Parts: sequence; structure tokens; C-alpha cells
Amino acid sequence: MRHTISVLVENHFGVLARVAGLFSGRGFNISSLSVGETEAPDISRMTLVVEGDDAVVEQIKKQLNRLVEVLKVVDLAQMDHVGRELALVKVNAEKRNRSEIIELVDIFRAGIIDVSPKSMTIEVTGPEEKVAALIKMLKPFGIREMARTGRVALPRA
Amino acid sequence: MRHTISVLVENHFGVLARVAGLFSGRGFNISSLSVGETEAPDISRMTLVVEGDDAVVEQIKKQLNRLVEVLKVVDLAQMDHVGRELALVKVNAEKRNRSEIIELVDIFRAGIIDVSPKSMTIEVTGPEEKVAALIKMLKPFGIREMARTGRVALPRA
Repeated sequence: MRHTISVLVENHFGVLARVAGLFSGRGFNISSLSVGETEAPDISRMTLVVEGDDAVVEQIKKQLNRLVEVLKVVDLAQMDHVGRELALVKVNAEKRNRSEIIELVDIFRAGIIDVSPKSMTIEVTGPEEKVAALIKMLKPFGIREMARTGRVALPRA
Repeated sequence: MRHTISVLVENHFGVLARVAGLFSGRGFNISSLSVGETEAPDISRMTLVVEGDDAVVEQIKKQLNRLVEVLKVVDLAQMDHVGRELALVKVNAEKRNRSEIIELVDIFRAGIIDVSPKSMTIEVTGPEEKVAALIKMLKPFGIREMARTGRVALPRA
């Protein structure tokens, strides 16, 4: 099962390495990870998407809670939540197919943030399925480079 | 100086922990980190924002290049690039101040992705300064929870 785990941590050096180590030590792969600041200074939120057995995820949660720098661990798979990700995609684009790409960008309410004679860089935000759908539509043009943030999520109010 | 470092890695277990360990082992703090899939299967891109001495960053880049799972390391601070981040912000919102929040959301071309009788969850994408500016405007309402992706960036074409 796919789990989205949100971990509030004190942002000391090494916390990230320790948290990542807990997962990799058990052979778990982290399919996406985002770490950023929160509403509180000195506290960061890590959002991890991991694929794995429920029982093992439960064990990892317990181990995370034992680390002193970990303030809170929530498995969002167990509650109603909203999740989003952001991707930057640089595609081949020349005069002849530029308008076709602009059409796709409009349909997906994405944006164009850079353009050159031979390429365009597109920014898209949304649930993973939406981001994946636009990427799929852009593939035939030739994707030169791509950077995805990984998922961030908050429980529904 | 602030560095945005983009690292292409094979997405095996443990790569993340090793890369994070390289930075934390030198007392560096990673202020944001995003890890997501790329255009190629089995290859992930890590984007790290670190504050630090240029010479030390140069050393870390060399050490990263020595890891077998690391395919490419680029310091985007050394080139023209576009960068974006995404934040989800849950703020206190009741009937009486809901329209004021909606106005802010419109000004920043942000979006509302969840609403309850006592709160709203806002999604905002942009350069860090824009994201920070909206967060600053939302603070007086009372921020309940926040999740930021950290920066992703690509070199300009």
C-alpha cells in the first residue's frame, strides 16, 4: 500500500539522514520526499511517499517517534487529506509545435516559465494524476529535463 | 552563499540517506530538499538548497560525484535557472474573513483546495519570494498547518 507520511522534525543537521536511514535500512524505497519550513521557526516538515507493507510502516512510525528530533508523525493514508505536487518540465519546442504545447498548458492550467528557440519550460501543480497526465501528453515532443517536488499533503479540516 | 544543487541519482534504497549524510557530516544544514522522479525510469532528481561556504560546497560536489549511484551533480547557483516551490497553507477562516482571504488568493494567483467552517487550505506556487509573501499576508489570520515542497529548479534553456 502507498503511504504518505508527514513528519515534523527539529531542523538540526543529520535529522534528514537519520530519517532516510530508518527507511532504507529496512529496504524501503522512498518514492518521493519533500522537506521544507513550517509555520514554526526551527521546525521542518518532511513528507515521504513510501510503498510498503502496513505492518512495517507501523514499525517505522514507532521508530521515528523514538528519535528526539521527531516531534510528530502522521500517516495521511489513514485520514482524509489533500495532496499536491509540482513539476518543472523542459520540452523540445520549435515554432511549428509551440502553439500545440500552449494549448496543452492551458487545458491543464499549467504555466510556461521559460522559452528558448528550441524549448519551453512548463510548471504544473496538482494531484499526482494530473501532473502525470500532462507529462504523458508532453512526452511525444521530447522531454529534455524534468524536476518534480514530490508530494506534500495536509489533513482535511 | 545559497546554493541550489541538483543531483541525478539511481533510485536505490539508501542513496538518499548517503547524500543527506554527506551534507550533515560536514555540519551543513539542508534548508530544503525535494526528491522526485525524472524523465528516465529508475532515476530520481534531488534538489537541495544549502547555505554555505563555496569551497565546502565544491568539496561536497566532488564527494557526491564519487558515489556510484550519483549520475550528475549541478550547482545551479553557477548558471541562469528557473526555480519554483509549492506550499499548502491551512489558515483560520470564518465567514467574516473568508472574502478577505479569497482576495489575497486571487492577487497571488493561488488556489483554494479545501474549506471547512473554520479553515481554508490554500495552494500557492512560485519563486520562494512570492510564496513567502503570501504566507506573510496569511499569518495574521492564524496559520494552522503548512507543508512546503522545497525548491525545484532547472537551468534556463
